Amino acid sequence: METKRNVYLNMVGIEDALECLFEKFGHLETGVQTLDVVQARNRVLAAPAVAAISSPNFHAAAMDGVAVDAKSTFGASDEAPKSLTIGKTAFWVNTGHVLPEGTNSVIMIENLNVLDENTIEIEAPAFPWQYVRKMGEDMVATQLLFPRDHKINAYAMGALLSGGVFKVSVRKRPRVLIIPTGSELKRWQDVTPETMTPGDVVESNTTVLTALCTDHGADAAVTPMLEDDLKTIQTAVSDGVDQGYDMIMILGGSSAGSKDYSKPVIENLGQIYVHGVTMMPGKPLMFGRISNTPVFGIPGYPVSAIVAFEMFAGPLLLAMQHLPPIRRDVVEVSPVRKVASKLGQEEFLRVKIGSVDGRLMSSQLPRGSGSITTLTEADGIIRIPQHVEGLEAGEKVQAHLLRPLESIENTVVITGSHDNTLDLLADQIRLEHPGMGISSSHVGSMGGLMAIKKGGCHMAGCHLLDPDDGTYNISYIKKYLPDIPVRLVNLVMRRQGLILPKGNPDNIKKLSDIVEKKLAFINRQPGSGTRILFDFSLKENGLSPADVPGYENEEYTHMSVAVAVLSGRARAGLGIKAAALALKLDFLPVVTESYDLVIPEVYYNLPKVQALLCAIRSEQFKQRVMALGGYGVEKTGQELFDSKTII
Amino acid sequence: METKRNVYLNMVGIEDALECLFEKFGHLETGVQTLDVVQARNRVLAAPAVAAISSPNFHAAAMDGVAVDAKSTFGASDEAPKSLTIGKTAFWVNTGHVLPEGTNSVIMIENLNVLDENTIEIEAPAFPWQYVRKMGEDMVATQLLFPRDHKINAYAMGALLSGGVFKVSVRKRPRVLIIPTGSELKRWQDVTPETMTPGDVVESNTTVLTALCTDHGADAAVTPMLEDDLKTIQTAVSDGVDQGYDMIMILGGSSAGSKDYSKPVIENLGQIYVHGVTMMPGKPLMFGRISNTPVFGIPGYPVSAIVAFEMFAGPLLLAMQHLPPIRRDVVEVSPVRKVASKLGQEEFLRVKIGSVDGRLMSSQLPRGSGSITTLTEADGIIRIPQHVEGLEAGEKVQAHLLRPLESIENTVVITGSHDNTLDLLADQIRLEHPGMGISSSHVGSMGGLMAIKKGGCHMAGCHLLDPDDGTYNISYIKKYLPDIPVRLVNLVMRRQGLILPKGNPDNIKKLSDIVEKKLAFINRQPGSGTRILFDFSLKENGLSPADVPGYENEEYTHMSVAVAVLSGRARAGLGIKAAALALKLDFLPVVTESYDLVIPEVYYNLPKVQALLCAIRSEQFKQRVMALGGYGVEKTGQELFDSKTII
Repeated sequence: METKRNVYLNMVGIEDALECLFEKFGHLETGVQTLDVVQARNRVLAAPAVAAISSPNFHAAAMDGVAVDAKSTFGASDEAPKSLTIGKTAFWVNTGHVLPEGTNSVIMIENLNVLDENTIEIEAPAFPWQYVRKMGEDMVATQLLFPRDHKINAYAMGALLSGGVFKVSVRKRPRVLIIPTGSELKRWQDVTPETMTPGDVVESNTTVLTALCTDHGADAAVTPMLEDDLKTIQTAVSDGVDQGYDMIMILGGSSAGSKDYSKPVIENLGQIYVHGVTMMPGKPLMFGRISNTPVFGIPGYPVSAIVAFEMFAGPLLLAMQHLPPIRRDVVEVSPVRKVASKLGQEEFLRVKIGSVDGRLMSSQLPRGSGSITTLTEADGIIRIPQHVEGLEAGEKVQAHLLRPLESIENTVVITGSHDNTLDLLADQIRLEHPGMGISSSHVGSMGGLMAIKKGGCHMAGCHLLDPDDGTYNISYIKKYLPDIPVRLVNLVMRRQGLILPKGNPDNIKKLSDIVEKKLAFINRQPGSGTRILFDFSLKENGLSPADVPGYENEEYTHMSVAVAVLSGRARAGLGIKAAALALKLDFLPVVTESYDLVIPEVYYNLPKVQALLCAIRSEQFKQRVMALGGYGVEKTGQELFDSKTII
Repeated sequence: METKRNVYLNMVGIEDALECLFEKFGHLETGVQTLDVVQARNRVLAAPAVAAISSPNFHAAAMDGVAVDAKSTFGASDEAPKSLTIGKTAFWVNTGHVLPEGTNSVIMIENLNVLDENTIEIEAPAFPWQYVRKMGEDMVATQLLFPRDHKINAYAMGALLSGGVFKVSVRKRPRVLIIPTGSELKRWQDVTPETMTPGDVVESNTTVLTALCTDHGADAAVTPMLEDDLKTIQTAVSDGVDQGYDMIMILGGSSAGSKDYSKPVIENLGQIYVHGVTMMPGKPLMFGRISNTPVFGIPGYPVSAIVAFEMFAGPLLLAMQHLPPIRRDVVEVSPVRKVASKLGQEEFLRVKIGSVDGRLMSSQLPRGSGSITTLTEADGIIRIPQHVEGLEAGEKVQAHLLRPLESIENTVVITGSHDNTLDLLADQIRLEHPGMGISSSHVGSMGGLMAIKKGGCHMAGCHLLDPDDGTYNISYIKKYLPDIPVRLVNLVMRRQGLILPKGNPDNIKKLSDIVEKKLAFINRQPGSGTRILFDFSLKENGLSPADVPGYENEEYTHMSVAVAVLSGRARAGLGIKAAALALKLDFLPVVTESYDLVIPEVYYNLPKVQALLCAIRSEQFKQRVMALGGYGVEKTGQELFDSKTII
C-alpha cells in the first residue's frame, strides 16, 4: 500500500479563486458560427442584428374593408352620403393586404353600405392613414434589432424573421470533456440493483455534470471511465486538449490521497493555479491550464462536484458565451435551531425552508458532501461566510432558493417523529392537489412538540406513550403545550417491535433475549417516541439501559435502524414493522401504537392543511398504507383530541 | 369579392375563458413513457421514485487511512501508544473503500505512525464509526426519492442513479400540430430580403410558437402553409386529430373576416367554446374541441399570437404534463406618463422599465399587435384590467418582467431625441461592459428635458437650436431645468437636411422648393429638435407652416420620416443624413447641429453612466459613427457645459 500523498497548495478563499480563474480565462470565447434563426433558440448573438427589410415593407390594410384616398371621402355625412366606385375610388382589401396605389386610408366594412356590385356608400369621411399599418411601423430596414450578446428567445426569433434576418452569427456552445476516474465506480449501464455487491458505487457525477453543462449552454462529452492510473488519465487529458475542447474536467482524484492523480496530471502537462478552496463542500477543487485550455479537477463526492461546478466551471462556461451569470432568488429565512460552522471555510448549508405563519423558517439538512439527497431535499442554500462561526436560532439570514417560493408557500411543514407513511402522504397529496407538497424533518416526537412551541412547523408527527395510562400524546400536549390550542389527528396505528436480521439467527423471542444474549443493539435518539417506548419496555421487563450493549448508539429514523441491522452493525433495534418489511428483515412485534399529527389551531384551517387532511382521509391513501404492512388505518384521519376544550 | 362575415360569439373575459378551457380540458394528460434517467432531464415523474438500493450500500471509509475495530484501539495515548498489525487488526483503506469485516472505524493516515511494513502505531483511540460513511447514510433502499410530478433536474438525476433507479416513468411531452394559414405569407426559406416585393410578409408565427412550445415542454410539428380555403384547412385539422396530436393550433383566420376559416372548421368538425376574449392584443382567440382534442384558433398578428399562446395554450400544455405555471417576476413601477386604456378589455401594455434613482419608471411602447418589436423591446408587461380606464403618471402599478431586474438595473435610460448612433452605442457598450445596456425612448428633445425634470431618465438626447445665437441646448437647459444641475456632453455633430426620394425626382435644391412645388411633406412631432429647426428654417426663408402641404403629418423618428419618403407617402422630410443613407435616399444638407446628452449631476458618477461615457469616448465608437456617414465626431464625448457653474 502506497502512502505517498499529494499536498494541497495553499488553499484560497472563493473570491480569490474566482478572481484567479477569470484573470486567467475570463477572456476565452468559444468562437462564432452562423445558424438559421429557427435553430438559434437560446443562443447568443455574436454580432448586432440589423433589420434587412422594413416591416411591413408596404402600407397594409389593418382592417377588412375598402381602401380609399381620404381626400375623396371628405364631406361625406349622414345627410350627404358619398358614393365610391369599386375599382376606381374604392378597392376591397382584407387585413394585411397592400394598399392600392393612390390610396391612403381604409374604411371598415362595418361602416359602409354596398349599393351594388360596383358602388358603395359612406356616411362619414375617412382620415388619412386610418386603419393602415404604415410601411416600417414595426421596424425599418437598417434598424438595430438586437445588440451583440443578446440571447435569442422566441420573441426575438419572430423579430429577426420579420426583419428579413434569416441567419445569425451566434457564439458556439462550449464543448466540455468530462473524464471520470475511480476504479471503484460502476457505470449504471453495467449493473443492476440486483447484481450490485457491497463496494459497488454507481457513477452519477458524469450524468449530473453533463446535465449541468446543458443548463449552462454547453455540450459535454464523456470519456470511458478511467482506472486510477497516472498515465491513463494523463493521456486522456492530453488528447482532450489536442481535440480542442473548451474545458476539461477530471472527475475524482482531486484531493490529496495517494491515488489522486488530477494534480500531477495538470502539473505534468501544464500549470496548476488553485488547489483547494476554503469552501465546504467542494474544498478539493483544483484548476489550472494546459496549453490554453482550462482544466478542472472536480472532487468526487456528489455535492462537492456540484458546488465546484456551480461556483467555478459553470460561470466560466457562461462567460465564454457572453451569457450572464445564473442568479438564484434570495429570501430571508430564520434558522429554527442554532447552526455551528467551522471558521475559515465558507459553508454551503443545505436547508429545508418552510413558510409558517408568514415567516420563512429554515432547518438544516445533513452536511455530508457524499449525500446527494441533501441537495435534492433542500429548498435553499445558506452560505455561511468563512469568518462566521455559525448561525443563531431566529437570526435573519439570506438563503438562495432551489425551488420557487410559491412552491415553498404551498408546502406543509411536518416536524417530529419519522414514519414511512409520510413518504406516501407526500405523493398522495400530489395526486389530488397538484402544486402542493409536504416537507418532513425527523427530529423525534419531542422535537416536533418543541418545533410547534417555536412556531417552526405546521404540524408535528408524534407517538409519545404515557406509561401511566397507556395513552398516546395527549398528556404530553397538556404538559408541553399548555398555552397553544392544538388538535390531535390520527395518521396511522402502527406496529413497533424488534427489527432483527433475516431469519432471526439469534432466535430472539422476547425483548429480554437481547440482554441475555448480549446482542449489539441500535437505539433511537432521546426524545423520540421509540426511545421512550424502549425505555418503558426495559423497565417493564425489569431491565436497565446499562444491561443493553449498544444502548448509546443512536439513529434518527426507523429506516436507519433497519439498515444498521441489515448491515450487521447491530443485531437488533426497536422500530416499525414497515421498516423491517422494506428491507426484508425479521420483525418481532412489541406494541401497537398511535402515530398522530399535532396541529396547532391557528394552522388547522389553512387550505394547505385542509388539503393534507383530505388526502389522509382518502380511501386510496388508506389502501396504500395497508399495502406497506405493519399499519392499521381504523382511526386514520380521526380527530382524537382538541386541546382548546381544556385551555 | 365576398363580403360574408363570421360573427364573434359573445366575447368573454380572460378569467371566464380560462375557467372554460380548464373545465373542458384540464383533465387531459399526455400519457406515460419510460426513459433512461440520463435522458430524463426536465421531464416530470409520472410515478413516485423509490430508491432500489441504499447509498452507500456498505460501510465505506470516508478518509484514507486504516480501518480498525474501535475496541482494539481503546487505551492508546501519547504515553502508551498502541501497535496494530496490518492485515490483522488494521487494514489500509482509501476513501470510498468497503470497511473490512470486523472493523467499524477509520484512523486517518495523518494520525498514525508506520513502524514497518506490517505494523503501525497510534497515540489515540478511535471512536466507533469515526470517518465512516455508514450504509444508507445518503438513502435507504425503499425510501421515497421523489413524489410523482417532480421535475427532474441535474441533482435529481444524481439521486436517482445513486439510488439504483436507472429508468423512470415520465409524462410524455405534448405533441402540438401547428397549421399556418394565410395566402399572403411567405416562408422564410422561400424568399430573400432582396427578392421580397411589397405585400410579401415573412411568416414568423410558426417559428415563434414552435419555440414557445419548446419553452413549455412540448414538441411542435408544423404543416405546410395552407391557402385560405375552408376545405384545405379542415382536412389538415381533421388529419391532425386522427394522428393523435395533443393540441392543434390554426394560425391566422381566427377573427371575423370573410376569409377567416378557423371558426367554421372547428364548428364543422366539433364544437367552439370561446370565440373572442376581451383582451388586447389577442382578442380574436378562439378554442373548441374536435373529438377529445383541444383546437385553438390563434390570431395572426405576432403579438396577439404570443399573448393567446401564453395566456391559454401554454398553460394547458404545462397542465397536461403536471408542470406548474410559468411565473414572471413582478415589480412595482410608476408610469412616466399617463396611459389611457379602453374600458371593457384587459390590456397587455408593453413597457420599457428604467431604474432611475432607486425607482422603477415605465414608459409605454407602441400598442400595435402587429409589431413584434413592441415585445422584443419591452422590459415588462403591465396588465390593465378591463374595468380600468388607464394609468396615472406616477401611480404604482405591477409589471411582469420580461428580463431580469438585474439587467434593468444595469441599463442607462436615455429619453429624448432620436439618433441612429444610439443604436451603435447600445452595441458598443456591450463590447466593453458585458451586462450593461442602454434603453432609449424617442419623445423628442423637449420631451427629454421634461423627463429629466420628472426624474424619468438618466440622460436626455437633445439638439435644441437657439435661433437667437445659434447655440444648441444650453439656453433650453437654463430655461427649463433652472434648478437641476446637469452636464452637457456631445454625442455627435450631425447633418440635418431634406430627405428626398432617390435621384431627387422633384429636383429640390433648397427648402423653399418644397413649398413652391407643393410637395407632400412629412413633419416631426412638436417638441422635437428637428421640428424646431424646421420652423426656424421656414421663418428664415420667409415661409409659414400653412405654406407646407402635409405640415400636420408627424412622425417620431428620423427613420420613420425616411420611410415615409421611401414609401411615397411624402415627397420630402427633414431629418438626419444617416437616415437617408440607410434607406438609400437622396439628401440635401441644411445644417450641421450638435446632438448632445444632458446628464443630471446626480447620475453623472453612476458606474453605468461612466461606462457609457467611456464607450462614447472610445476610438472604436467614433470610427463606427463615421462609417454611418453624415456625422462628425470632433466633439464626441466632450463636456460642453456644466450648469452647476451657474446655478
